[in-house]
Amino acid sequence: MKSKLKFEEHLLSKERKSLLEKIAKEQEEIGYYKLPDQDTSAIVEYAQSLDKSIETVAVIGIGGSSLGAKAVYEFLKPVKKLQRRLYFFESTDPINIESQLEKIDMEKCHVLVISKSGTTVETMAIFKYIYSLDSSSERYTFISEDGSKLDKFAKSVGINRFHLQESVGGRFSVLSVVGLLPLALSGVDIVALLRGAAKIKESFFNDGYIKELLVNKASFYAKNHAIYNINCLFAYSETMRYFIQWYVQLWGESLGKKQRNSAFNVGLTPIGLIGPKDQHSFLQLIMEGTRDKSITFIEIADFQNELEIPDISLEYLEEMDLLNGVKFSELISMQSQSVLEALLEEGDIPIDEIIIDRVDEASMGELIYYYELLTSLVGELIDVNTYDQPGVEAGKIILKEKLQQRKKSD
Amino acid sequence: MKSKLKFEEHLLSKERKSLLEKIAKEQEEIGYYKLPDQDTSAIVEYAQSLDKSIETVAVIGIGGSSLGAKAVYEFLKPVKKLQRRLYFFESTDPINIESQLEKIDMEKCHVLVISKSGTTVETMAIFKYIYSLDSSSERYTFISEDGSKLDKFAKSVGINRFHLQESVGGRFSVLSVVGLLPLALSGVDIVALLRGAAKIKESFFNDGYIKELLVNKASFYAKNHAIYNINCLFAYSETMRYFIQWYVQLWGESLGKKQRNSAFNVGLTPIGLIGPKDQHSFLQLIMEGTRDKSITFIEIADFQNELEIPDISLEYLEEMDLLNGVKFSELISMQSQSVLEALLEEGDIPIDEIIIDRVDEASMGELIYYYELLTSLVGELIDVNTYDQPGVEAGKIILKEKLQQRKKSD
Repeated sequence: MKSKLKFEEHLLSKERKSLLEKIAKEQEEIGYYKLPDQDTSAIVEYAQSLDKSIETVAVIGIGGSSLGAKAVYEFLKPVKKLQRRLYFFESTDPINIESQLEKIDMEKCHVLVISKSGTTVETMAIFKYIYSLDSSSERYTFISEDGSKLDKFAKSVGINRFHLQESVGGRFSVLSVVGLLPLALSGVDIVALLRGAAKIKESFFNDGYIKELLVNKASFYAKNHAIYNINCLFAYSETMRYFIQWYVQLWGESLGKKQRNSAFNVGLTPIGLIGPKDQHSFLQLIMEGTRDKSITFIEIADFQNELEIPDISLEYLEEMDLLNGVKFSELISMQSQSVLEALLEEGDIPIDEIIIDRVDEASMGELIYYYELLTSLVGELIDVNTYDQPGVEAGKIILKEKLQQRKKSD
Repeated sequence: MKSKLKFEEHLLSKERKSLLEKIAKEQEEIGYYKLPDQDTSAIVEYAQSLDKSIETVAVIGIGGSSLGAKAVYEFLKPVKKLQRRLYFFESTDPINIESQLEKIDMEKCHVLVISKSGTTVETMAIFKYIYSLDSSSERYTFISEDGSKLDKFAKSVGINRFHLQESVGGRFSVLSVVGLLPLALSGVDIVALLRGAAKIKESFFNDGYIKELLVNKASFYAKNHAIYNINCLFAYSETMRYFIQWYVQLWGESLGKKQRNSAFNVGLTPIGLIGPKDQHSFLQLIMEGTRDKSITFIEIADFQNELEIPDISLEYLEEMDLLNGVKFSELISMQSQSVLEALLEEGDIPIDEIIIDRVDEASMGELIYYYELLTSLVGELIDVNTYDQPGVEAGKIILKEKLQQRKKSD
């Protein structure tokens, strides 16, 4: 991975020291930092032991319990011959539940139920429905916190269980068993994924170039968060269309908060874009709209793909002959560079660039850990608790009341 | 459709009159207004004449040439037994092109090439590639402006052509042949789609409730656009996940502009969200983040679906028995209402609500025309040219230079 900032920002040495001390302290309490170093042998063995007749895995989970695995799986699916297909059940929309179930042969399906708390409404509603169709214990594996109600239930009926440590938050859990188990079951090389993450970790904590870069980038976002309060990730490949959804959750839910000391509402709004498609959708707004957006371009250095525009000339369309003989991988890279240059020329839009090596596990691991670290750094600097989400509770309480009222009136 | 504002706004009668006069004038020049009244018989007949052996339609187009048809198609696909499958080629990403082509049997595929200008780089690159695999004219249909270079080429090789009027902009073209032809080929009832749109048009231009409502809503967005510069559409159904992409283009590209009189950069930033999934992703930021967002909830009144959470009690999880016997359609509706109420309680987040009748063509037609009108109204009020997109040209010029340099150095 390469990462280059097109803007300048340097923290004063005192601020810098204080920030790095806080992150060092966080490391002791916040579980995600250590995930690249974990022993994955139990997960790998479990995945290998699953019956070969199982062709699909239904993952019942929502938010942090699905977005990470989905991002990695959908990134790799078009280029890897994965062993099993994953289906994500992450909505109470009955049309969605039914249309996904229609595609699945339950006899050849394993069901993974993921809920950190163990009492997520969406997950439990869908699980109950599927469990009413098939209640054989060997059909299921559960991931939850050790001793949660879900975990106790699973134990009582003999369903296999994995545990997520309490110190790993849902949106930081993709490199924990929450992401690794579904990915391993589908045939993703989770060791390579963690190796990528470990590379960024190593560079950050051992004075590699990523440390300077992330500190400067986070510092720019934090200092200018009231001006550039929208952060667009413009990824030039369709393979990343679920990665940007993972990013949206990580960034939005971590950084949209009341400040710890002032209780003032702050937040950095994430937007995920896919190039070149969104050049025909969102680019106009970036180029001529309010100057409230920073843009990060993500490019793939080597698509490992030779597909080429053929050397044919069409009458009346000779001007398009410029495209002849150009590889699509080359064209998409020229497109991102052209838009990057056009935006840079405006002079008042903060731009930076991330170039990942290729579409593989290690590159995705690097990108994930890069964004997790960046989020932690910005969170410290804008003075929020990066790891909680108190704002989602009010809606849950109202829902519970509605369900109780409904029950009473039955 | 029902639409209710939870905030108040009334234009002064003078401003109101002036706005409605401008819209009346626009109607003469801007083509999309008249689309609900068009004669679709040529499109319907053409679709019916397509060989029954054709199972898939590959739509090559990007931005306004694909987002509209995709929004409607993906909305209806899970509930309608559609006759043909549509594949959208809207990226130069070679991995995406190859993985889509792998799913298509070219012998049973018809290819629709859509480009208003006729020289869209992405569309022409992909067309050239597919044309090199199969150059039989009957395999293709083209949609372009009458007399464009693409149109002339198609004529010269005997490919069937349809024409998009110049006065209909790409992002307002879903109800023109650009959206209607692919939809008709897939088996969507395009007459019902237009009937829905006509209903909203009728209500707006003949003093129905939609007129007051849209004028007040647009007025609120325009007057507060410097405060609430982010407009979130929170749609409670997975079926709408491409509709929100269509909305993002319509809103962002129409309203992100230099003002006509001051050349000042303005813009309203669209964000598309899907419930309940994004309750676990973006809701925290809305609830506790900066007060720069308005939220529109879209709900489906009748899912026409009986799927129900079964009446089973699980040991340790008895608290989830509240869900027993609840229909999923009822649950998702309670979820949206709970979040809406929780956000309303904050008191400083502008909220409104759209309830469409069901998942069918007419409901989607209503929603499309509602949003097109709203966009036109806001554009007038914030003093931008709603229908151009000058900001995307700079990148295109740089790309052309890069392609020329590459050619020279060959």
